Amino acid sequence: MQPFELTVADAAAAVAARTLSPVELVDSVLDRCDAVEDRLHAYVTVVADRARRAARQAEREIREGVHRGPLHGIPYGLKDLVDVAGVPTTASSRAWADRMPGEDSTVAARLTDAGAILIGKTHTHEFAYGLLTPQTANPWHADVVAGGSSGGSAVAVAAGTALFSLGTDTGGSIRIPAALNGTVGLKPTYGLVSRHGVAPLSWSLDHVGPLTRTVRDAALVLSALAGHDPSDPASVSAPAGPPASFPADVRGLRVGVPGTYYFDRVDPEVEAAVRETIGRLRELGATVTHVDPPLTEYVEATQWGLMAPEASAVHEETLRATPHLYGPDVRLLLEAGRHVSALDYLRAQRTRSLIGRAWGRLFAGIDVLVAPTSPITAARRGQETVRWPDGVTETVTDAYVRLSSPANITGFPALSLPVGRDSAGLPIGAQLIAAPFAEPVLFRVGTALEDTLPDTGGLAEVHQADIIHSASDR
Amino acid sequence: MQPFELTVADAAAAVAARTLSPVELVDSVLDRCDAVEDRLHAYVTVVADRARRAARQAEREIREGVHRGPLHGIPYGLKDLVDVAGVPTTASSRAWADRMPGEDSTVAARLTDAGAILIGKTHTHEFAYGLLTPQTANPWHADVVAGGSSGGSAVAVAAGTALFSLGTDTGGSIRIPAALNGTVGLKPTYGLVSRHGVAPLSWSLDHVGPLTRTVRDAALVLSALAGHDPSDPASVSAPAGPPASFPADVRGLRVGVPGTYYFDRVDPEVEAAVRETIGRLRELGATVTHVDPPLTEYVEATQWGLMAPEASAVHEETLRATPHLYGPDVRLLLEAGRHVSALDYLRAQRTRSLIGRAWGRLFAGIDVLVAPTSPITAARRGQETVRWPDGVTETVTDAYVRLSSPANITGFPALSLPVGRDSAGLPIGAQLIAAPFAEPVLFRVGTALEDTLPDTGGLAEVHQADIIHSASDR
Repeated sequence: MQPFELTVADAAAAVAARTLSPVELVDSVLDRCDAVEDRLHAYVTVVADRARRAARQAEREIREGVHRGPLHGIPYGLKDLVDVAGVPTTASSRAWADRMPGEDSTVAARLTDAGAILIGKTHTHEFAYGLLTPQTANPWHADVVAGGSSGGSAVAVAAGTALFSLGTDTGGSIRIPAALNGTVGLKPTYGLVSRHGVAPLSWSLDHVGPLTRTVRDAALVLSALAGHDPSDPASVSAPAGPPASFPADVRGLRVGVPGTYYFDRVDPEVEAAVRETIGRLRELGATVTHVDPPLTEYVEATQWGLMAPEASAVHEETLRATPHLYGPDVRLLLEAGRHVSALDYLRAQRTRSLIGRAWGRLFAGIDVLVAPTSPITAARRGQETVRWPDGVTETVTDAYVRLSSPANITGFPALSLPVGRDSAGLPIGAQLIAAPFAEPVLFRVGTALEDTLPDTGGLAEVHQADIIHSASDR
Repeated sequence: MQPFELTVADAAAAVAARTLSPVELVDSVLDRCDAVEDRLHAYVTVVADRARRAARQAEREIREGVHRGPLHGIPYGLKDLVDVAGVPTTASSRAWADRMPGEDSTVAARLTDAGAILIGKTHTHEFAYGLLTPQTANPWHADVVAGGSSGGSAVAVAAGTALFSLGTDTGGSIRIPAALNGTVGLKPTYGLVSRHGVAPLSWSLDHVGPLTRTVRDAALVLSALAGHDPSDPASVSAPAGPPASFPADVRGLRVGVPGTYYFDRVDPEVEAAVRETIGRLRELGATVTHVDPPLTEYVEATQWGLMAPEASAVHEETLRATPHLYGPDVRLLLEAGRHVSALDYLRAQRTRSLIGRAWGRLFAGIDVLVAPTSPITAARRGQETVRWPDGVTETVTDAYVRLSSPANITGFPALSLPVGRDSAGLPIGAQLIAAPFAEPVLFRVGTALEDTLPDTGGLAEVHQADIIHSASDR
């Protein structure tokens, strides 16, 4: 096993035991970039020299007995919406070709304090306003999409060009690419992780969170990220700090299985894998009950009613000045959002409030909801719609976001973890949702599941096919 | 001194010592209603029988040794936006002529638990969307307005037809009538007091709080009201519970005196009274520094940009169904708010966020800001504008709200207390503003001031003039 193949936890143990040097680890990851990046294009920017310098510093610190914790010396990728002083933030858009931040985002600063080492900035669907990340290839199959918007972050983790990464999630943009690329992805409770220095898409729905190869790794990274930041107006302190450890034991936990919505129009192979996961939780001693998630009929209108005008407000000036620098899909969405009335926006805001309260009552009776992350595995490149057996046709984008956006609307924490593969060999993700600040429950259930799975923490065997990239590839 | 003239604190002490029976106290207040209500019209509804029953129950409980605390047996008035099961909530509007709530608002339930006794529902400017409360008369002078929107609540406390009352404050609607009628009025920190069961005007700016004759009384009432309520999505728990006691001592406190905005276009008599108040704080040992409240040039646009569409969203269906049942002023505002775009609303929302952060930084350097509550004392009935010496003409409504709305936009707590009278004998209010959850600082400063004032806690000598009431008087 080469160093780039290690989980964060295993690499951290080796670094702490001084059996692995941060320099060796970073070199291994950078070599892996050299080997696969021309096929995957997970990164917009790789900061190899900066990473090597940081690795030498980490090596020195550790040799001198200064150990910053489990992320010390661990290489990671950062979605290219997240500022790092002196490294361009492009948002994978021509509209931000010249943007050079002067200061770190709060999460980048926290990771630096924790000793983590930035490998580079990962591709996003332009300004996070889409679910495809067309520049980046899915490492499992040359013909399918990476998903998005945190597509580069998921692919880097899946392919071994980062041990962990950060993404952002406004309607599912961490969890969807995590599911499609076979990684773990956590959207934390709204407000738990600062968005200061992170380009907003829709500030009332935006979250920052980790993508990792294991649930334990997600917990390690979250511990470094979480905490109140006065620079993010939505930032809150968790009632209790994130857990340092948690039992991989689900006995007595109340697992809710949605009888409606989450298994409507779901690929049979995805459904089977998720139901098998639920069965495994029952075998492990959890109590499984059927529940009906409330007000799901308003999810799509609420998600769009909030996101479209907020995104247009964020981009108002840039769109006026340089409309031609946006991709046609994003430009269309931003133009459309300008015409929403305040009454429509407020209706969505009030509906969100009702949904949040109803879901709060739902979680009084359960500890965790288990559902698919996405109703489909990674779609073929260029595929625009999904046709369901009941005759309904849905856009691929609508399908991806359908099961993930409730956790954005409510702000409840949600974790996607890989629970199998479909017959084409593509990863399937299961989604665990909990009450606000109940991340420890997600980690507990997720760890228990991953301990029973054969190939957790494994990497994608990156396909050898040539990928044709779009002209906008940077 | 008759019982209705007592402060809450003094009445509570007498009730606890069994030298005053709640029955005697309630009868005194109801007699006072009989004596002055035909001139003042503070109340929409007086529930005399219900009050007498509650008084007998309180008397019985206290005789049996069950003492619920300082509000036990204390008669109060409730702004007629606040639900009490079985008592109509009219919002002083013909549009709500038939509205009979089936359950108590959270604040009404908390006051009942505390043993307080409802005298009746007080007049509001229709749906709280105005600052005049035309049905109600100012007890100090027959020719001037009561102010609003919590006009009835202020007048009842000022005239002795309630020992305290509750109002709501979206742009100043507790503090302005408190200032204009010579009472204390507290707008607590946003989220500290539940709005569940209170008709909203603009939910991101709405607050519920007490009107009292003394600052000590405001603290007593707030203690009964504050606390987290899951039924109000904006409800928060204070970092510390409300204080049971606080020193009337300002030594070492940092008092900020605004060099801009709060003394621009202010009546000279109001300015003199407030500056004298500041001088008194210096004499009492406070450190006085001059500060420039930031971003005040955006206050008016932000207040209206948030309030107009939110109010129109609240009233959307009623306005469509029964537009003719609204008064012409409120109907015009509600119609106008329908045409605001989401982008405009979101611009106001984002500006609020900037203002809040800038004010947070301001309060890192001071403990309390001291300013006028309103730039003018109570205006004449029918007066529409104020002309300032620099030639600027302002509507009376804009003048009232100008100095109070910053605390709604920021959510910071603000207290108005009477600090003198103008040459016409009309009360002048000073406004104390503090950082979020720093109500104890407001009480400390307010109590220290009121201990030095001659006629604190006194009642208006209700004028004898006949008031002509509008046809919509209920």
